[in-house]
Amino acid sequence: MAVGRDHRGQVLNEEFQRRDHNIQDVMIEDLQRQVAELTQRLRAQDIVYRIISILFGFKIFETSTNLGIMACMRTVISKAKPFVQGAIIDLYCKTFSKCFTIADLGCSSGPNTLLAISEIIDAIDSTRRKFGHRSPEFRVILNDLPGNDFNTIFKSIPYFIETLKKEKGDEFGPCFVAGMPGSFYGRLFPNESINFIHSSYSAHFLSQVPLGIENNEGNIYIAATSPPSVDKAYLEQFRSDFTLFLNSRSEEVIPGGRMVITIIGRRSSDPSSKECCHIWELLAQALREMVSQGLIEEAKLASFNLPLYAPSRKEVSASIQEQGSFHLDMLETFDVNWDAGDNSQNKNYVFDKIKSGKKVAECIRAVTESMLVNHFGEEIIEDLFQKYSENVGEYLVKEKAKYINFVICMTKKEGKLD
Amino acid sequence: MAVGRDHRGQVLNEEFQRRDHNIQDVMIEDLQRQVAELTQRLRAQDIVYRIISILFGFKIFETSTNLGIMACMRTVISKAKPFVQGAIIDLYCKTFSKCFTIADLGCSSGPNTLLAISEIIDAIDSTRRKFGHRSPEFRVILNDLPGNDFNTIFKSIPYFIETLKKEKGDEFGPCFVAGMPGSFYGRLFPNESINFIHSSYSAHFLSQVPLGIENNEGNIYIAATSPPSVDKAYLEQFRSDFTLFLNSRSEEVIPGGRMVITIIGRRSSDPSSKECCHIWELLAQALREMVSQGLIEEAKLASFNLPLYAPSRKEVSASIQEQGSFHLDMLETFDVNWDAGDNSQNKNYVFDKIKSGKKVAECIRAVTESMLVNHFGEEIIEDLFQKYSENVGEYLVKEKAKYINFVICMTKKEGKLD
Repeated sequence: MAVGRDHRGQVLNEEFQRRDHNIQDVMIEDLQRQVAELTQRLRAQDIVYRIISILFGFKIFETSTNLGIMACMRTVISKAKPFVQGAIIDLYCKTFSKCFTIADLGCSSGPNTLLAISEIIDAIDSTRRKFGHRSPEFRVILNDLPGNDFNTIFKSIPYFIETLKKEKGDEFGPCFVAGMPGSFYGRLFPNESINFIHSSYSAHFLSQVPLGIENNEGNIYIAATSPPSVDKAYLEQFRSDFTLFLNSRSEEVIPGGRMVITIIGRRSSDPSSKECCHIWELLAQALREMVSQGLIEEAKLASFNLPLYAPSRKEVSASIQEQGSFHLDMLETFDVNWDAGDNSQNKNYVFDKIKSGKKVAECIRAVTESMLVNHFGEEIIEDLFQKYSENVGEYLVKEKAKYINFVICMTKKEGKLD
Repeated sequence: MAVGRDHRGQVLNEEFQRRDHNIQDVMIEDLQRQVAELTQRLRAQDIVYRIISILFGFKIFETSTNLGIMACMRTVISKAKPFVQGAIIDLYCKTFSKCFTIADLGCSSGPNTLLAISEIIDAIDSTRRKFGHRSPEFRVILNDLPGNDFNTIFKSIPYFIETLKKEKGDEFGPCFVAGMPGSFYGRLFPNESINFIHSSYSAHFLSQVPLGIENNEGNIYIAATSPPSVDKAYLEQFRSDFTLFLNSRSEEVIPGGRMVITIIGRRSSDPSSKECCHIWELLAQALREMVSQGLIEEAKLASFNLPLYAPSRKEVSASIQEQGSFHLDMLETFDVNWDAGDNSQNKNYVFDKIKSGKKVAECIRAVTESMLVNHFGEEIIEDLFQKYSENVGEYLVKEKAKYINFVICMTKKEGKLD
């Protein structure tokens, strides 16, 4: 099921019918304007962040690895944007709160870190203008693990706030941006202190590799050749982690508060389905090639598995329902081509297996490199991703592969747990 | 006026007479216990932080520079501790608040960063136990400029919270620790969101070098040979900055909330008095020696001045009164020897001019190095601090020099500004 603009519009419309006409008009007008501005802003943002990187001496534009993950993340954020903005505008219109506390979980460190936050602030600011309200106070909290590079983010914050003030005028804000290090599989924030939680491409990472999957030899994730116990162990780990995530957030989010999270997922009920596994199978292939060349020990590969999981819609919604604190407003699926540059807005795109293979490999490298280095050592990395890039390129000749993604919109229930 | 243990006890007692006996007993018992524990904990802390540094791969113990500033800062924090704890216990006993938001301004990055916070939490936790109350929720916000190394702090936070939980049992907390980058010469936090502000050895740094002091040639701070316009410009900059500091905090601190800040100061009414200027005069001397050796251009030295100020009690209290939002509860003076190792608790101390000169130079180097490198370049630094260390050593033979410090305790007034 492809999620075109029309389909998204329709789903959104169904959601909006429950609201009064005034809000509906405001939202639609807003969404239309924003769709038109999207391409333009994406380009502008690139320039702005290049300036920031020069001003503050970031190194983020120097590695192609970062460019790979940036393009991929930006596409995911832009696909999720209508849902994020729908939720935040609805929340604003329901509460007209004078103070919005917004948390971004798994914010990472790079030019996309403040992109979603800036879009959330945009949505609230343009809505409050339409109602002729004063600007609310924004409290933004950026979360990631303690090892994340918060220094780089923090250096860009004065510029970020300056830019917001310039764009939105003196009446904007105030806006306070803080960092909160810690794992989102546990409490991060005080009780009922958060209005809106955003998380992009983070909550599919598990808190650990599932236990008891030593029998998944030669694979690094669920694969066609994995024993059924591996599927089960991954699902169990996901359920336990996602429930812990929801439990923690349920204490932190105010009643009626919203949460929009984007994760990788799958359409099939089969957890070893190609749509979610093949991207990792190609990496396992590259690792196996290196084993056969004597570059990696067989036992080393046998003991490596990835701490992530692509759930099905049913698995996600079952966990939300069982945990019971959040109402699932919407669970939308959207696809992103493995090569994020291959999209409908990029009219000049021409497929080139070498280039595409490289770009996908860069993206996957950005999210897996530290785990791979920890397990296999630094020295195999260049060779591994060279092989992986070739495997991906060859595969893309045969098939236009896509990541399946879920954007999950939830509202914290008003009463006690069901 | 030396501030011995007896004198501090007397001042505190005068303050405590205004409170009821129950609180008084609690505080005294607490202070006594804490004085007894102090030496022991200081030693233990060193070991704990060494473990942290190993666990998380800090580099903080590798440079002797950091050891110098650590010892100095630790002495300042321990001298200010009874005042900080007096203020926080009083605040707790007045409000029995279920949630304490504590901000540390200019938290820096190193083993002392969490020392004051840990002492504040200790004081609240032991007081609430005596009353048989449940633990309040702690929200700690660490502030420093965006260029501060927050990454290193953040890596130590899981260990810090784990240690607190182990020490204080399962009923402790929760405790949330966030980072807030930004200049304290401006708004940092939302309106009336902070219960307690602590700042140690930061608020004497000015937001900039005073303007119009090009005539302070050959000096780097106010000196005996500075024209009167230099004294005036420094005082004006301090007044303006300190008022901005107070204005910002007055919006952020809840009515009745407390603020305890420690800064360098002076006893004399003369801003060029030796007690606050000679430490810088010796550095200027070293720079002048390098000018005469042709290692530094004369014009370079002529255009360099330090952005800090050691105010008098009168200047501090006048600014607080004029700004009007805070009641000045106490402004206590205490001395710390330039060589912080030379103190009454260190019975084995034997003066050695080379060692002492080096230690003082390390401490001053830690706070001035980045400014000096920016202005004069990297290449002069080793030579400069070698010369400075010798100058300091020679001076300490003649005189046991001390930093004069103020610990300033304030309460946010309940009503509107006077």
